[in-house]
Amino acid sequence: MPSEFALIERHFTRPTRHTVLGVGDDAAIVRPSPGMELLVSTDMLVAGTHFLADTDPEALGWKVLAVNVSDIAAMGGQPRWALLAAALPASTENWLAAFSKGFFACAAEFGVDVIGGDTTKGPLNFCVTIIGEAPPGQALLRSGAQAGDEVWVSGTPGRAALGLAHLQGRCALPEPALTTCLAALHRPQPRVALGLALRGLASAAIDISDGLLADIGHLLERSAVSATLRLDCLPATILPTGKKDSLALDCLLGGGDDYELAFTAAASRHRQIKRLDEQLELTLTCVGSITEGDVGTLNLVDASGRPVSAASRGYDHFE
Amino acid sequence: MPSEFALIERHFTRPTRHTVLGVGDDAAIVRPSPGMELLVSTDMLVAGTHFLADTDPEALGWKVLAVNVSDIAAMGGQPRWALLAAALPASTENWLAAFSKGFFACAAEFGVDVIGGDTTKGPLNFCVTIIGEAPPGQALLRSGAQAGDEVWVSGTPGRAALGLAHLQGRCALPEPALTTCLAALHRPQPRVALGLALRGLASAAIDISDGLLADIGHLLERSAVSATLRLDCLPATILPTGKKDSLALDCLLGGGDDYELAFTAAASRHRQIKRLDEQLELTLTCVGSITEGDVGTLNLVDASGRPVSAASRGYDHFE
Repeated sequence: MPSEFALIERHFTRPTRHTVLGVGDDAAIVRPSPGMELLVSTDMLVAGTHFLADTDPEALGWKVLAVNVSDIAAMGGQPRWALLAAALPASTENWLAAFSKGFFACAAEFGVDVIGGDTTKGPLNFCVTIIGEAPPGQALLRSGAQAGDEVWVSGTPGRAALGLAHLQGRCALPEPALTTCLAALHRPQPRVALGLALRGLASAAIDISDGLLADIGHLLERSAVSATLRLDCLPATILPTGKKDSLALDCLLGGGDDYELAFTAAASRHRQIKRLDEQLELTLTCVGSITEGDVGTLNLVDASGRPVSAASRGYDHFE
Repeated sequence: MPSEFALIERHFTRPTRHTVLGVGDDAAIVRPSPGMELLVSTDMLVAGTHFLADTDPEALGWKVLAVNVSDIAAMGGQPRWALLAAALPASTENWLAAFSKGFFACAAEFGVDVIGGDTTKGPLNFCVTIIGEAPPGQALLRSGAQAGDEVWVSGTPGRAALGLAHLQGRCALPEPALTTCLAALHRPQPRVALGLALRGLASAAIDISDGLLADIGHLLERSAVSATLRLDCLPATILPTGKKDSLALDCLLGGGDDYELAFTAAASRHRQIKRLDEQLELTLTCVGSITEGDVGTLNLVDASGRPVSAASRGYDHFE
């Protein structure tokens, strides 16, 4: 088996574009853009918990970085640098080559320099740390939502969870829904352009990784507010056929993994945000509004304002 | 079992001192000191590979951060911020409380703000990312050693490996050597003050994590030089009794885990470096010199200059 150093050299060392010193020393060296604040986040993905062990390695490579890029997107930041640590049960050259292809494709797509990492033997586990930049005070926090703000969601959350349900045999998706849902699952598109456009426009933002209701719940708690969401206003396009069964609803409300953004903005910003929809070629849907009341409470109502019970509250890794 | 969010709140959220936004949002926000370069490194530690699963959790918490602080020390940087990602097989409150106590003790000792992280279910695995700062162009690289430079080692490498050998029943250390060696193993002291003092003085540096010979070998390769080390000049104080048997020699040459620094400097700097020895209360030993010749070759010689074979070449995680 090739050594750790040979593996890193062969699969994880590529030219950087805005880095002083990349892979190969005790630490990488980067020079932040003058006056910028840095956004830093880390995510660990474990086989069996976050992905199926037999997932296509190229798709996995993309996704491991994409979920981190999404954290920077949710802060309204520009992704800049990433580090990858990996524990591998055995180093299969072909598997690593495919994984690295997907990982670097995502890095190239979002302008991220891969500046360092670590590889070791162990149960399959990936940990990526990402660093982004934003002008001082302009990052989008979870904590800025205020009563009266509207609640928005990008894209069509739930597709990734539906794709997973299909792979697990819990449903049988017809084409072309299957292709669409598997693309959402395997090659999520972090909403970097949206996050950047929302600077100065949104009052709060979060990326949907745990599930739509759960993540909006996190935002409400950090903002110390509550919200009312209109079920009939949620993006109805999970299944391109328009079919909206119970599983699809569960996936919409409780499925993460699409890495769309949920955000809030003053009602006066409504038209500006709708214009972004066209500019970014990304559906932005107003799904409800922020209210005062019990902190963190999320009221789901139907078209006539009657309460609807939330079947699924999102995924907590230790529940 | 408490939820992921409760765990993070209870054990991994402490006040920060130089951070704009810490744990709790999609990313942390930090403001780099104006004009500074950032040093970034990540290390993954896996149960069974890097530590024994039954290691005392408080010691483990210290060590998981210390090995990362050591990477910044080896670059001559000031450690500033860290993120911790952890996969845990089950969340035992007492275990986590002890781990977190050790982790934050190390953070406090070295002025590190813990700004974020991730906890998830999975085989025991810790991944820390650390960010340090250094003035532009002043970081110590592995690549600056030149023929004629002297090779130096801090402290007394090998004690941690000897402590581990005792725990594994491969030797029986007498007191007080046992206490000394277990302290080196469980509570390594990253050489941050030394790294800072070596800015502008050392030509290259590396921390000894894989083993003395292996890590000096990495430095030689990055610098495209070779070296001759005098076996009789190596720190002889592994065993406080002065006993120097074959296992002790293996530990000295091949054991990492003490996180001492190996560095090179021009011979004209010899007296300046010896003075640091007193200032820092840390033994600095000149162990050989950089030579031209086959890149990466490390010649180990005895007092009369005769070659000595290196029994152990350090530890490669995939060999």
